[in-house]
Amino acid sequence: MTWLDLSADTGFGVSNLPYGVFSTPGAAPRTGVAIGDAVLDLAAVTGDPVHATGTLNAFLAQGPAAWAAVRARLTEWFTDAWHRATVEPHLVPRDAVTLHLPIDVADYVDFYSSQHHAENLGRMFRPGSPPLTPNWKHLPIGYHGRAGTVQLSGTPVVRPSGQRKAPADEVPTFGPSRRLDIEAEVGFVVGVPSRLGEPVPVGAFTEHVFGVCLVNDWSARDLQAWEYVPLGPFLGKSFLTSVSPWVVPLAALEAARTDPPLRDEELLPYLDDRKERWSLNLQLEVRLNGAIVSNPPFAPLYWTPAQQLAHLTVNGASLRTGDLFASGTVSGPERNQRGSLIELSENGAEPLALPDGTTRTFLEDGDVVTISATAPGPDGTRLSLGEVTGRIEPVR
Amino acid sequence: MTWLDLSADTGFGVSNLPYGVFSTPGAAPRTGVAIGDAVLDLAAVTGDPVHATGTLNAFLAQGPAAWAAVRARLTEWFTDAWHRATVEPHLVPRDAVTLHLPIDVADYVDFYSSQHHAENLGRMFRPGSPPLTPNWKHLPIGYHGRAGTVQLSGTPVVRPSGQRKAPADEVPTFGPSRRLDIEAEVGFVVGVPSRLGEPVPVGAFTEHVFGVCLVNDWSARDLQAWEYVPLGPFLGKSFLTSVSPWVVPLAALEAARTDPPLRDEELLPYLDDRKERWSLNLQLEVRLNGAIVSNPPFAPLYWTPAQQLAHLTVNGASLRTGDLFASGTVSGPERNQRGSLIELSENGAEPLALPDGTTRTFLEDGDVVTISATAPGPDGTRLSLGEVTGRIEPVR
Repeated sequence: MTWLDLSADTGFGVSNLPYGVFSTPGAAPRTGVAIGDAVLDLAAVTGDPVHATGTLNAFLAQGPAAWAAVRARLTEWFTDAWHRATVEPHLVPRDAVTLHLPIDVADYVDFYSSQHHAENLGRMFRPGSPPLTPNWKHLPIGYHGRAGTVQLSGTPVVRPSGQRKAPADEVPTFGPSRRLDIEAEVGFVVGVPSRLGEPVPVGAFTEHVFGVCLVNDWSARDLQAWEYVPLGPFLGKSFLTSVSPWVVPLAALEAARTDPPLRDEELLPYLDDRKERWSLNLQLEVRLNGAIVSNPPFAPLYWTPAQQLAHLTVNGASLRTGDLFASGTVSGPERNQRGSLIELSENGAEPLALPDGTTRTFLEDGDVVTISATAPGPDGTRLSLGEVTGRIEPVR
Repeated sequence: MTWLDLSADTGFGVSNLPYGVFSTPGAAPRTGVAIGDAVLDLAAVTGDPVHATGTLNAFLAQGPAAWAAVRARLTEWFTDAWHRATVEPHLVPRDAVTLHLPIDVADYVDFYSSQHHAENLGRMFRPGSPPLTPNWKHLPIGYHGRAGTVQLSGTPVVRPSGQRKAPADEVPTFGPSRRLDIEAEVGFVVGVPSRLGEPVPVGAFTEHVFGVCLVNDWSARDLQAWEYVPLGPFLGKSFLTSVSPWVVPLAALEAARTDPPLRDEELLPYLDDRKERWSLNLQLEVRLNGAIVSNPPFAPLYWTPAQQLAHLTVNGASLRTGDLFASGTVSGPERNQRGSLIELSENGAEPLALPDGTTRTFLEDGDVVTISATAPGPDGTRLSLGEVTGRIEPVR
């Protein structure tokens, strides 16, 4: 129950309370909490300078006790009408604010944790070889991406140029990517740092990770295919990675937690997460020019974020506040659950038919891609993770 | 000529003037310039707050005109005895200061630009395949590393643990790396950012890059070999990357510039650096427990840093102040010019004999590795790039 006049189907109800950074004309970026169609100006209502820095990092660094305290206070404010006079003056209509990148990204790591995605891509990138590499079921494969080009949802996606070489070509040519793609992913935001040399076990996941956002890891498949052996993806990814503006706290996702899937290979002890329940029952949706083209389910992912974090740090690598690690493309077993166009179009061989009568293999200039997601809430409602969107602009 | 009493063979003479960050007891870290056996307290002598921030980033962001102005002033101060009374009170003995990581590292990229190194590693990691992948002579292969674990020279190198799987093993095992290695590299520090979507051409190298440091890209070869297909090195590298404390400005390396090597494949226009001269005649030295084990030459590298920067940004990826990109292991054609132990020991098959009567394939606990380098100065002397060192500590 809340004194707020929320629509029945809002994804930003009292059980969600995601954090973002917003500004209004003439005022500096500050921390806000999305509630219904509004943003609560957390800096103004609390007077706490930690919420006035223009990124969530300082608050995230305070750790789980501080996160819980603020969440408890927000819940009380929004549910007890006694607080209405205090809170209501600091609610700003969401359509009147400018949103900003919520975190100052430290390191960005991208995993590869959907077996369906890895198998689909393995077939396409390495025809004739087994689709999964021998290590795939023993460790959550990941790599570092470019933190400096992680940008807010809505940032224009300028078609990148680079070297492409089709198998039939003698030498590579230079030009705009012809195989520009999306990757629908879920990102995890680190709040509490760890020390160099001290691994973070699977059981310490919530001591370090604050929350979740959506990620579109834009990918130029032609650049990627030519460059990625032997040191991995580089320019095929580094031109832009988009993230959603609202970071949903793990605390809001209790009802979404579910048992991890059965694994085919015995896990090494540091990856054993059978006592944890960090598979998350999130339902993603991918829209291309408004039409739903896919509904990837997050729960079946082979590797959970708790395992990803344990693996990332098992060699002693330290965490910093603002580290972002993403799941890798979320693809389910069904054709209409695939999280990238290269999968949806079978490597371009089977174009997608859109409702406007056009077809797509890869992205064309002017296309708009929007990824959204929902999670079960504590009360049978569904929480929204917001959305991450981007429009393709012609090469410059 | 200088009024300073410098030893004839100092590598930190008036033509070098590298920048670092230092502190003294009771005083905060600030920018210093190495000169002879001293550090000039740049914050104190200039009174400019840009030098009192505790990293070089703010100064680096000011760009080439500011860098040249400070360098001209330093040169005048050290060569004109009239300034002695102003400057001398701000010289601190180098052995009395604590050095700090000179830059706040934004993104860290590691290239793979020595043909000898790539061929040596290709033979070892992919026996039976051509040592160079088909893309190698068409683009400077690189990947993103972990910026958060780039640390100052001297940081203990704790032996990392992780998954290893020898070809004969059925499944991977977990434990301390048995094949801990070095990679002797040269790093380039970006001062001036670039905008998303705007490539930096080879000719704009000096508009963005401030200077050079030495890098030891510590590598756990067993972790790397098992994890790196298909997305590249991850935990085999991310536990620690060490950098030298003194950043030598490009302006000090004019006499080291030399023509790039002839290339076997025609370069795409964006990589054409024939009008630039950004091969650098640096001579590296690798010492293991005090004994020189290698002298890698930097000039023969196939890809120059100007090409690396042009490639890194050609897809529109933006630069930030503090970006660090490294050359990849520097290995020359001769056996005693190889920049890693896996190469020096022929993948462990031919142990190195050390003067103390022991042998090495990979690093043992207690080993100390120090990489240093010199460059020709303008006056027939040699400049020092300082050194990057580290001692191996047992697994925790």
